[in-house]
Amino acid sequence: MGTDTGDTPDTAAAALARFSINQQTVKQLGLPELADACGRLGVRGVGLWREPVQRYGLRAAARLVRDAGLTVTSLCRGGFLTDPGPDARRRALDDNRAALDEAATLGTDTLVLVSGGLPEGSRDLVGARERIADALAELVPYAADRGVRMAIEPLHPMFASDRCVVSTLGQALDLAERFPAEQVGVVVDTYHLWWDDRAPDGIARAGAGGRLASLQLADWITPLPEGVLLGRGQLGDGAVDLRHFRRLADAAGYSGPVEVEIFNPALWARDGAEVLAETAERYVRHVAEEAVRETS
Amino acid sequence: MGTDTGDTPDTAAAALARFSINQQTVKQLGLPELADACGRLGVRGVGLWREPVQRYGLRAAARLVRDAGLTVTSLCRGGFLTDPGPDARRRALDDNRAALDEAATLGTDTLVLVSGGLPEGSRDLVGARERIADALAELVPYAADRGVRMAIEPLHPMFASDRCVVSTLGQALDLAERFPAEQVGVVVDTYHLWWDDRAPDGIARAGAGGRLASLQLADWITPLPEGVLLGRGQLGDGAVDLRHFRRLADAAGYSGPVEVEIFNPALWARDGAEVLAETAERYVRHVAEEAVRETS
Repeated sequence: MGTDTGDTPDTAAAALARFSINQQTVKQLGLPELADACGRLGVRGVGLWREPVQRYGLRAAARLVRDAGLTVTSLCRGGFLTDPGPDARRRALDDNRAALDEAATLGTDTLVLVSGGLPEGSRDLVGARERIADALAELVPYAADRGVRMAIEPLHPMFASDRCVVSTLGQALDLAERFPAEQVGVVVDTYHLWWDDRAPDGIARAGAGGRLASLQLADWITPLPEGVLLGRGQLGDGAVDLRHFRRLADAAGYSGPVEVEIFNPALWARDGAEVLAETAERYVRHVAEEAVRETS
Repeated sequence: MGTDTGDTPDTAAAALARFSINQQTVKQLGLPELADACGRLGVRGVGLWREPVQRYGLRAAARLVRDAGLTVTSLCRGGFLTDPGPDARRRALDDNRAALDEAATLGTDTLVLVSGGLPEGSRDLVGARERIADALAELVPYAADRGVRMAIEPLHPMFASDRCVVSTLGQALDLAERFPAEQVGVVVDTYHLWWDDRAPDGIARAGAGGRLASLQLADWITPLPEGVLLGRGQLGDGAVDLRHFRRLADAAGYSGPVEVEIFNPALWARDGAEVLAETAERYVRHVAEEAVRETS
């Protein structure tokens, strides 16, 4: 199966100009294989994760993607800033400083933050959100020195207790707007926000404030698997009007990369290059504006 | 295990004055067993479901609960109003009229509505919500004739595609407020709304408009099971500040029943009367105001 992204290689390349593949979507590929597959398809952007980058070696990974002509559109992830214990808090801040260093080394200006859930036994969402703000205040100068922006990612409310107490774009912006837009932005991920009738207003607000740091895509499919973490759908397989969200981001002034991040064991069980080609084709069909013009 | 709800039976009865047990929480109990167990514990309210009521017989069920001195605090459920097909729509309206009839026969003024998910293949949340409004417009006169109020229940956003496109209290109120408060209200269920920082404003708005038709409780626990429907937690086992929600409802002028509705196979596998006693005890400990006064 080819990418089927248009009549000519140039058309395909144009349709994929903003497309970025998050490494986790095709985690069966090592970094060199990922870079090769991107090169063959004309994919120019990759979103990376700290753990596989560390396994490969940070500097080696930075060199590999640079030599392959790839742009690192984001690094996942910092965050987990809600634990009130002094030791846990110090470790979390240290870890986030390390993540900011790694982002700078990889040449990306965007560190995605998954803020953290409720501490064990706590029912205090408001307090947890306030601790995130406190931690951001400590991290902002460090991020500024490295030219990296922390991007708060609201996660679907089904993750509010165990992963991220920031559940809506509005909440993420309430946090981000306490700090300079150059250091703290937000992530718009369709998987997490698709259901929210206030998301369009949030996207406009993020754009107006210069805080729309990253646009990520995955589709919503059911039934959700146990634990709900690995149930994301391939673009076009689910309930999300993906093109609508891309247009909302564009209308808010966003012209950056559009990163596809899908956690799905069925995709991981397949040939990674084939999944990447399929994902690129789905992107052109369900997200890119060029495809609409061609087929209309 | 007793209910341990206070020093004397009178104290226990006072603490349980607003407590109602939703039938589904202890679905292992038949209606007569449920009524017996309620009588022994001093529980005065039950929330019923259409299917077990129909199996028992509608009129027989109405007589049973009346003779037992129980108040039916709600009937679950109407709704599923999002399918655009004319036949499906007609069937849904007929079914909701039947549910309104059944509510009137059972002597409850509250029919809980689960509005319905996205139709197969649709990505149009806005359109689906609009079809709910259209259906409510048709049902309102019928509800008024029977003295029953339809109570729109916002379901957790993880159910937005397959069960209920109304995901927040704000959305439920936007729908309800198009109609008279006597015919269309909202349900506040902690399981669905606990994560939402806008829920307190929504509860105040619902109270001010006289639309807070039902307060339901379940706790939020993780990991969620496959399909996520049957993962609700016993009161006190999870992340929700249940008393806070009850106080918010009270502050909004709500003085009605507080109904516990938990879907959890681990509870269903136990002795139903024991689960009811435990639930009543948890209610007193984690929800009722009287318990706070006693222990503070």
